[in-house]
Amino acid sequence: MHEPTTRAGLPGREAFDLERYLADCRTLVLGEIQRLIPTQPGGRALYDLILDYPLREAKGLRPALAIATCRGFGGKIDAILPTAAVLELYHNAFLIHDDVEDDSLIRRGRATLHQEHGIPVAVNVGDAMLAMSLEPLLENMAVIGLGPSLLILRAVARMSRESVEGQALELDWIRQGAWDLDDDDYVTMVTKKTGWYSFITPMMVGALAAGELSSKSAEVLTEFGQALGVAFQIQDDILNLAGDVEGYGKEIGGDLWEGKRTVILLHALRCAAASDRQRAVEILALARPSTTADADAARLERTLDELHTRGDLTAAGREQLLVELTGRRGVKTLEQVRWLQALIERSASLDYAANVARFWAERAASKLRDLSQWVPPSTHRQVLEGVVEYVHRRAR
Amino acid sequence: MHEPTTRAGLPGREAFDLERYLADCRTLVLGEIQRLIPTQPGGRALYDLILDYPLREAKGLRPALAIATCRGFGGKIDAILPTAAVLELYHNAFLIHDDVEDDSLIRRGRATLHQEHGIPVAVNVGDAMLAMSLEPLLENMAVIGLGPSLLILRAVARMSRESVEGQALELDWIRQGAWDLDDDDYVTMVTKKTGWYSFITPMMVGALAAGELSSKSAEVLTEFGQALGVAFQIQDDILNLAGDVEGYGKEIGGDLWEGKRTVILLHALRCAAASDRQRAVEILALARPSTTADADAARLERTLDELHTRGDLTAAGREQLLVELTGRRGVKTLEQVRWLQALIERSASLDYAANVARFWAERAASKLRDLSQWVPPSTHRQVLEGVVEYVHRRAR
Repeated sequence: MHEPTTRAGLPGREAFDLERYLADCRTLVLGEIQRLIPTQPGGRALYDLILDYPLREAKGLRPALAIATCRGFGGKIDAILPTAAVLELYHNAFLIHDDVEDDSLIRRGRATLHQEHGIPVAVNVGDAMLAMSLEPLLENMAVIGLGPSLLILRAVARMSRESVEGQALELDWIRQGAWDLDDDDYVTMVTKKTGWYSFITPMMVGALAAGELSSKSAEVLTEFGQALGVAFQIQDDILNLAGDVEGYGKEIGGDLWEGKRTVILLHALRCAAASDRQRAVEILALARPSTTADADAARLERTLDELHTRGDLTAAGREQLLVELTGRRGVKTLEQVRWLQALIERSASLDYAANVARFWAERAASKLRDLSQWVPPSTHRQVLEGVVEYVHRRAR
Repeated sequence: MHEPTTRAGLPGREAFDLERYLADCRTLVLGEIQRLIPTQPGGRALYDLILDYPLREAKGLRPALAIATCRGFGGKIDAILPTAAVLELYHNAFLIHDDVEDDSLIRRGRATLHQEHGIPVAVNVGDAMLAMSLEPLLENMAVIGLGPSLLILRAVARMSRESVEGQALELDWIRQGAWDLDDDDYVTMVTKKTGWYSFITPMMVGALAAGELSSKSAEVLTEFGQALGVAFQIQDDILNLAGDVEGYGKEIGGDLWEGKRTVILLHALRCAAASDRQRAVEILALARPSTTADADAARLERTLDELHTRGDLTAAGREQLLVELTGRRGVKTLEQVRWLQALIERSASLDYAANVARFWAERAASKLRDLSQWVPPSTHRQVLEGVVEYVHRRAR
C-alpha cells in the first residue's frame, strides 16, 4: 500500500509539504471508498452518484487528520484507512443532505447534487453512503482487534448524533426566526454540526486505531478538535462573505441568502441601530429565491409584457399580476442582501469574527502542545502543526 | 417487563388474538424507543419529531415479527427488544425520507412530516433516527453476547444497503421513464426496497438474538421473508387503488399520481392496445401536482378572473396565461388519473395482481412449514402463522 509519509518528504520542517500529505491521504481514502463499493452491475446508477461529491476537488482534511493522528500515535496506515474512508462517506452524505436542507446551489465549484439530479435522488444517495458505512467498521475487528473497533463504532455513533443535533439546532433557529443569540450559542451549534465529524472524531478514531485508549488523551483531542473546528468554521463564514467563488468553491454570500447564523452576522446585529436591526431581521426572514421559481417568474413576466403590448392586458393589470407574483413568493432581493453586506461592513464584523477565530486558533495551538506526551515529533505531528498554522494564517 | 405472550392468551388456536399480540409488541417497542432518546433538553424539538411517525396508528408488524421469531426460536424478549426498536427507527426513517422522495401527502392518516414541517426538518429527522440506531446495537453485546450481536450488526448493514438499492432502482425507473418491466423486475425491486427491512431482517435478527446462528435456518427465513414481503406489497398496491383512505392510511390512487411501477399497472400496460399504452406512458411521465403549486395557481386564477371582469384583461389574454400556467407545470390531471384507473379495470389487472399475491402467500405458507424443525408450535409460531393467514385472506 502506498504510504503518504514516503512521498511527503523528510520530517524536516522546511522539507515538509502539507498540501502533498493531504493530497496523498485523499488518494488513499478515495481508493478505499472505491474498494467498498459493491461491484454488482445492478446498482451502478446509485454507486456512481456516491462517488460524485468525493471525487470533486477538495482538501481532504478529515482523512488527513485521521491518518496523521493514527500515525502520530504510532499506528499503521492499514489500521485507520477503512475508518478514514467511512468518515469521508459520512462527511459527503452530510454535505448532500445539508445542501438539500439549505437548498444550496454550488458545492465544490459545481452544481449541488439535488440541483443536478433532483431531491429524491440526492436524499437516497446520502442514505446509501450512510448504509455503506457500517460494514467497514465491523471489518475493523479483524485488523485492529475488538476493543479499539468497538470504541471506534461508539465514536462514530456519537459523531452522528452530534451532527444531526447541530443541524436541528440551526434549522430550529431559522424556523423560529431566532436572532437573539450570542457567540456561545454559535460555538455550541458549529461544534455539534461540523466540529465533531470534521475534527474531533477523525482525530479520535485515529488515536483509537493506533491503540491509544486512555480517557486523558481523548479529552485533550476533543478540546483540540473543538478549537480547530470553531476556528475553521468562523474562517469559512468569513470566506463565504469576503472570498472569491473559485478559491471558495461555494457561492459567495450564500450564508446571507440562506439566513445562516454566523459570528459575523450576530455581531453586526448586536452593533446595529434598533431600526437597522429590525430591517435586517425582516430581510433575513425572507426565503432565498429558488432558481426554478425565478425562471418561471421571468417567463411569466415576458408573457405579461407581450399581452400588454398586444393590448390584451392593461398597465394596471400587468402591475397587479407582477406584485402578486413577487408578493406571494416573499423572497430576498439582491438589493436587500447588499444592504446586509453594507451593515456588516459598517460594524467591522468581519474583523471582529477574525479576532474570535484567532482566539480559537491559539487555543488549538495550546492544546496541540498538550498532546506532546502522546504524539512525539514526526511527519505526522507536523500535519497537525501545519493545520494549526494554516488556521492561524487564515485568521490573520 | 411486560410480556406480550401472557396477555395474548393461551396457545390454543381459538383463543389466539393476533391483533393483541401486535399491539403489545408495539407498546413494548415504543417504550424502548422512548428509552433510547437522550434526555438533554437541548434537542427536544428534534427528539419530539423523531416520535411523530412511530406514535401514529400503525400495525407494528416489524416489531412483532422480530419478537415472535426470537421467542419462537426459544429466545427471551429482552434479547430482541433493543434491536426491534432499532428496526422500528430504521423503518420510520425510511418512511420519512421516502415521503420526501415521493412527495407523498398522507402517512398513517395524517399529513406527511415534510408537508407539516418542511423538507429540511424531515430529512434531518430521518438522519437523526439512523444516527440513534447504532448505539443500541452495540449495547446488545452485554445482553446476548458478541457473536450474535455482530451478526445482527451485519444483518442491519445488509438491510440498509438493500433498502437504498431498491429505492435507487425505483427512482431510476421513474427518471428513465422505464415501463418495459416484468413481474420479476418488480419482485427484485420490492424485495430490496421493503422486503429486507420489513420482513427478512426483522425475522433474521429475531433468530440471531435467540442464538440461532445456522446458515440453513437463515436461508429458509430469508425465503419466507421474501415471499411474505412480496405478497404484502402487492396487496398494498391493490389497496392503494381499491381501498378506502381510512382503512389504508394513505391517499387512494397515490401510486398512479406518483407513477409507481406496480404489478397492477405493468399488467394493464402489457394488455393495453398500443395507442392506449402510449397515452398511459405519457400521462405517467407527468409530475403529480404539488399542493403548494396548486394553491398558487388557484390564487392566480382568481386574480385573472377579477382582472377580466374589471376589463383589465381580455378573454384571449386570460386563456393564454392559464395555458401557460398549466403547461409549464406539466402535471397530471384528475381526469387523466381516472382514465388510467379505467384502463386498469378493463384489463382486470387488480384480479391478476391478486393472483400473483396469492402465489407468494402460498409460497410463504410452504416456507413456514419448512421452519417447523426450528420453531415448534407456540404462541409465537402462531403469530407467524397468523401473518401468513392474514396475507392469504387479503389475497382472496
